[in-house]
Amino acid sequence: MLIQIPDILTPEEVAHCRAVLDASPWVDGRVSAGPQAAKSKFNLQIPVESREAQELGDVILRALGRNPIFNSAAMPLRVLPPMFNRYDVGMKFGAHVDGSIRSIPGTGQRLRADVSTTIFLTDPAEYDGGELVIEDAYGAQEVKLPAGHAVVYPATSLHSVNEITRGSRWGSFFWSQSMIRDQGQRAMLYDLDMAIMATRTKLPDEDPAVLALANVYHNLVRSWAEL
Amino acid sequence: MLIQIPDILTPEEVAHCRAVLDASPWVDGRVSAGPQAAKSKFNLQIPVESREAQELGDVILRALGRNPIFNSAAMPLRVLPPMFNRYDVGMKFGAHVDGSIRSIPGTGQRLRADVSTTIFLTDPAEYDGGELVIEDAYGAQEVKLPAGHAVVYPATSLHSVNEITRGSRWGSFFWSQSMIRDQGQRAMLYDLDMAIMATRTKLPDEDPAVLALANVYHNLVRSWAEL
Amino acid sequence: MLIQIPDILTPEEVAHCRAVLDASPWVDGRVSAGPQAAKSKFNLQIPVESREAQELGDVILRALGRNPIFNSAAMPLRVLPPMFNRYDVGMKFGAHVDGSIRSIPGTGQRLRADVSTTIFLTDPAEYDGGELVIEDAYGAQEVKLPAGHAVVYPATSLHSVNEITRGSRWGSFFWSQSMIRDQGQRAMLYDLDMAIMATRTKLPDEDPAVLALANVYHNLVRSWAEL
Amino acid sequence: MLIQIPDILTPEEVAHCRAVLDASPWVDGRVSAGPQAAKSKFNLQIPVESREAQELGDVILRALGRNPIFNSAAMPLRVLPPMFNRYDVGMKFGAHVDGSIRSIPGTGQRLRADVSTTIFLTDPAEYDGGELVIEDAYGAQEVKLPAGHAVVYPATSLHSVNEITRGSRWGSFFWSQSMIRDQGQRAMLYDLDMAIMATRTKLPDEDPAVLALANVYHNLVRSWAEL
Amino acid sequence: MLIQIPDILTPEEVAHCRAVLDASPWVDGRVSAGPQAAKSKFNLQIPVESREAQELGDVILRALGRNPIFNSAAMPLRVLPPMFNRYDVGMKFGAHVDGSIRSIPGTGQRLRADVSTTIFLTDPAEYDGGELVIEDAYGAQEVKLPAGHAVVYPATSLHSVNEITRGSRWGSFFWSQSMIRDQGQRAMLYDLDMAIMATRTKLPDEDPAVLALANVYHNLVRSWAEL
Amino acid sequence: MLIQIPDILTPEEVAHCRAVLDASPWVDGRVSAGPQAAKSKFNLQIPVESREAQELGDVILRALGRNPIFNSAAMPLRVLPPMFNRYDVGMKFGAHVDGSIRSIPGTGQRLRADVSTTIFLTDPAEYDGGELVIEDAYGAQEVKLPAGHAVVYPATSLHSVNEITRGSRWGSFFWSQSMIRDQGQRAMLYDLDMAIMATRTKLPDEDPAVLALANVYHNLVRSWAEL
Ligand code: NI
Ligand code: NI
Ligand code: NI
Ligand code: NI
Ligand code: NI
Ligand code: NI
Repeated sequence: MLIQIPDILTPEEVAHCRAVLDASPWVDGRVSAGPQAAKSKFNLQIPVESREAQELGDVILRALGRNPIFNSAAMPLRVLPPMFNRYDVGMKFGAHVDGSIRSIPGTGQRLRADVSTTIFLTDPAEYDGGELVIEDAYGAQEVKLPAGHAVVYPATSLHSVNEITRGSRWGSFFWSQSMIRDQGQRAMLYDLDMAIMATRTKLPDEDPAVLALANVYHNLVRSWAEL
Repeated sequence: MLIQIPDILTPEEVAHCRAVLDASPWVDGRVSAGPQAAKSKFNLQIPVESREAQELGDVILRALGRNPIFNSAAMPLRVLPPMFNRYDVGMKFGAHVDGSIRSIPGTGQRLRADVSTTIFLTDPAEYDGGELVIEDAYGAQEVKLPAGHAVVYPATSLHSVNEITRGSRWGSFFWSQSMIRDQGQRAMLYDLDMAIMATRTKLPDEDPAVLALANVYHNLVRSWAEL
Repeated sequence: MLIQIPDILTPEEVAHCRAVLDASPWVDGRVSAGPQAAKSKFNLQIPVESREAQELGDVILRALGRNPIFNSAAMPLRVLPPMFNRYDVGMKFGAHVDGSIRSIPGTGQRLRADVSTTIFLTDPAEYDGGELVIEDAYGAQEVKLPAGHAVVYPATSLHSVNEITRGSRWGSFFWSQSMIRDQGQRAMLYDLDMAIMATRTKLPDEDPAVLALANVYHNLVRSWAEL
Repeated sequence: MLIQIPDILTPEEVAHCRAVLDASPWVDGRVSAGPQAAKSKFNLQIPVESREAQELGDVILRALGRNPIFNSAAMPLRVLPPMFNRYDVGMKFGAHVDGSIRSIPGTGQRLRADVSTTIFLTDPAEYDGGELVIEDAYGAQEVKLPAGHAVVYPATSLHSVNEITRGSRWGSFFWSQSMIRDQGQRAMLYDLDMAIMATRTKLPDEDPAVLALANVYHNLVRSWAEL
Repeated sequence: MLIQIPDILTPEEVAHCRAVLDASPWVDGRVSAGPQAAKSKFNLQIPVESREAQELGDVILRALGRNPIFNSAAMPLRVLPPMFNRYDVGMKFGAHVDGSIRSIPGTGQRLRADVSTTIFLTDPAEYDGGELVIEDAYGAQEVKLPAGHAVVYPATSLHSVNEITRGSRWGSFFWSQSMIRDQGQRAMLYDLDMAIMATRTKLPDEDPAVLALANVYHNLVRSWAEL
Repeated sequence: MLIQIPDILTPEEVAHCRAVLDASPWVDGRVSAGPQAAKSKFNLQIPVESREAQELGDVILRALGRNPIFNSAAMPLRVLPPMFNRYDVGMKFGAHVDGSIRSIPGTGQRLRADVSTTIFLTDPAEYDGGELVIEDAYGAQEVKLPAGHAVVYPATSLHSVNEITRGSRWGSFFWSQSMIRDQGQRAMLYDLDMAIMATRTKLPDEDPAVLALANVYHNLVRSWAEL
């Protein structure tokens, strides 16, 4: 299940992120990669512990908090602090695997990386190449979205970012641990939530059928959620 | 989840069953009980392999096949041939446990006894006592229904039949193995099926919300059904 | 599984709770209900953050901590601070669904609402109506207990409180997240715990059968508990 | 997981199927659709019980039996007899849901429809339109393959066949019940099987690492397979 | 969980098996091994379809049917026809993996190989070497039992038979598919069954604690058994 | 799965532990046992809250942190502070059951005791008796390792320490809650991790087969890990 969420950031937030990033100290992205991934990773990043990363991270987290689609699709329990990266001409990230268990910086806690999210901070017109490529057995799905849009996808696939041949691609990336461990269950809850929303546009909240559907949704969450 | 189903048999079917049973050779019910249950079982039964039991069993199975509530609540994969029993004055079945794995008579096959069903063949006015008692931690729920009505309940509880103090109580009893092993999941599917039915009385079948709800139902069945 | 626990509060604790509540600022219960439930909720509550709610909440939590039946039945991992509510003449809470995921006030944490508990603070003789009604497919079970008694039940059902026609019904209510997510597994552990307790009244602790039963119980907990 | 399998039928088998179908009695496809799907289904079919359907069904089943990719991806326990359908100009199958439980014609048995397979019997050059469209939250994936090729996909999605605007699209379609109920587990086993195959092209069969990987694969199958 | 069962065959049955095998046509054991296992398998077998194998197989199956320990430990749903093998001086079976899914000869059916059983037909004094070696991370457990005894163990381990240095080792071997797929659950049910048996030697069957323990056992079987 | 880990402590760490313990105030081990276990426990312990226990506990935890075998086998989420015990002549710990849920001293938190670890601090030559005995249905496995070595085993078995007949046996013991609740899944992940390690000694990290195996490992962790 890959879900596109348009306008998760407002144009003002995108502009603010870009202004702060423009003045930030970019470093080699390999500092935060494991030994296997480091061999295929060629990009730039803002250091996780920098003041800029933390301020912009809060902008992202506030945006997530107000977005019902993100919350219904990811059902996040914990979110790793958002990272900010940049691919200039010639940079790319070859096919790789995301580790399943990550340390949350500055705490003793760990997080299971269930759901990946990329928020685009530059527009497709600003660069060539740079598609996010999600590989599965059927082939490769390519994603390239307008600035401020997000794509939410399971952290289970081999994936890559194509080489940039013109311009520069800026983005924010983070992993979430979901309250719903299994991605098939997560997808069913999302589908049921959307179907109930659609039903509620046509039937009143106090309709017994609507009440019964809401009860089924909450009882499925009780059956599946871990927190 | 205890579900009452009114009129699972027509009055004609009830009358036919009673006429056949009336002319049948009743035997001591302990013949079909395990050693633990036999100590508390005092009733009469029609032999499972008798012509009468088989003919009336088919009447019951046809009635089940046409009943959408029974099928939605039990989701039967296999049904053990219905048994016919009778409690006269002084008879009862003390608190006991139903074995989980039963042999299907006349075949090498076995069945997991998930769901119990009792169909009442005599009316409450015809006898005193004889309540089916389902014990759980909250106390005891007593069930006594009109002739032709059924009660469907999980085979997991301690249960009993109270002593008869007047008249005679006739009934049919059988176990089903459900396609849905877990009774909590079975209950959620039943609730969702009923909620979708209610929604479809108000919204057309081709409404995208109705289509999406049907897809969720079938995908939950795919996730849970064993056959 | 609905479990009644007599005398979870002592008469002195009940009297203390009532005295404190009597002097408390009751407010409209809809302040703590979601939009769907608010439409059917008509009662009074003590504000969660009030000094009175916190003091009495501690009384309740201490009572839970010393009660082996509550701990065996609910196997609580986290308990939401107890709430205190009151239904006067004409008040009621219509059939509604409890949300599955709740925020723990004053923390960033959330809790999965698995188990509901109501502790009665007024006696049945003090009011008419006011039954807690747990609806399931079998019909409606009504609960109304002496002051100081509790009822523990799964948070999965549609439920309601009948309208008060005389007097006033006071109570405390709270949700627990259980270490055992599945209510069928929770019920089996409760049954096994009770059966082992009963066996230990007849056989010594060091009997190998008792030791083996205890090992099975703890290994089932290891298989199922999430914490 | 959508998997394309090239050349599951040989050119001779495709030619044979087309010759037999050419001489067959096509009937309205709605005869085999449930009431909801019938409203959006406009195509032609060979009757399931016809001699032609049975002979060609055997051709298909033999082809499946010899194909390691199909067996690794679907892990079929039971396959419903293949159906043969045809879309002429103006025909289509609107978005619909496949029922989860199907009867196997001519037997009392049922099958859980886990995996859908379409084998194309006409080439893309022979018709316009007619794409198989698999809808998910990310958008719609369209599939249109050369004659003799197959696409294998989970039976869980809303899907449709686009209207034909030129020529005619012939195909065979069938559902399989998999030994692996969960599609995420099925995908992991497929990925592990492919990875072990690739490892065995480089390391000898008796290498302890290869032996250990094979043991992990078989033990995962033991953990997950139902048959 | 490795379980030794003494005297699963009577001395007369052992003698009968040996007399029939003595007159049987032994063939190279590699005929029934997959390509990976064939490289390490050096023993002799009776052809599965031979009259002798079928007659002795029935002897074994009857012995299993009357043995409560075997049935409680393996909870067999299906048993593959027993095989008979022989290791003479210089023969052995190197470390190997048992395939998870086996075809039942002469039927279209398959079986999941959950539980392995070896019944020894020669006494330890009759040969040197020939230990059955079950390898796990802790090291290797070696098993060599008197004629007529059996060892039951999960089919999940790497295992081998040591080279024979004197005499000849005869045995019967077969796989069972268990009603309980997970070996941890199977072990818990076995432990609970044994503990209840031990309790029933001290408390009467109608003791409420015994009744409650039996109910827990059957409800765990209902939760876990697949058939 | 019992795993021996050699040299988890360096000789210097062992010597340091022994020197500190030598000067410590040993107390009766029954202070930290539940009522059932206390009846069979006869040994000495360092008080959990003592300065010595805390200092040496940190030595142990640092040693665990740097040991890849321990981390792959136990996948620890939380570790209870290590305890230090001592068996002198005549002391022993009879067969007993470890409780499943433990309180973490000095915090409100609890831990599920999944994995037991014993680190030996004295050499086998220093004492007679004192074997750790893990009982399962197959019989009893006895473990007695050199100083500095560890044994890691599931906390699910009945186990005991044999009576000391000469010298003194010193050791450290602690429970871990694993990210992988089920011990069968934990064993499969350990086996897969070891197999991938072995493959990586022969094939380069960027080999697609190695990448695919790493992806399967991480996706199994995503499917099973709870944190
Ligand atoms: Ni990545
Ligand atoms: Ni019964
Ligand atoms: Ni409520
Ligand atoms: Ni379809
Ligand atoms: Ni083998
Ligand atoms: Ni212990």
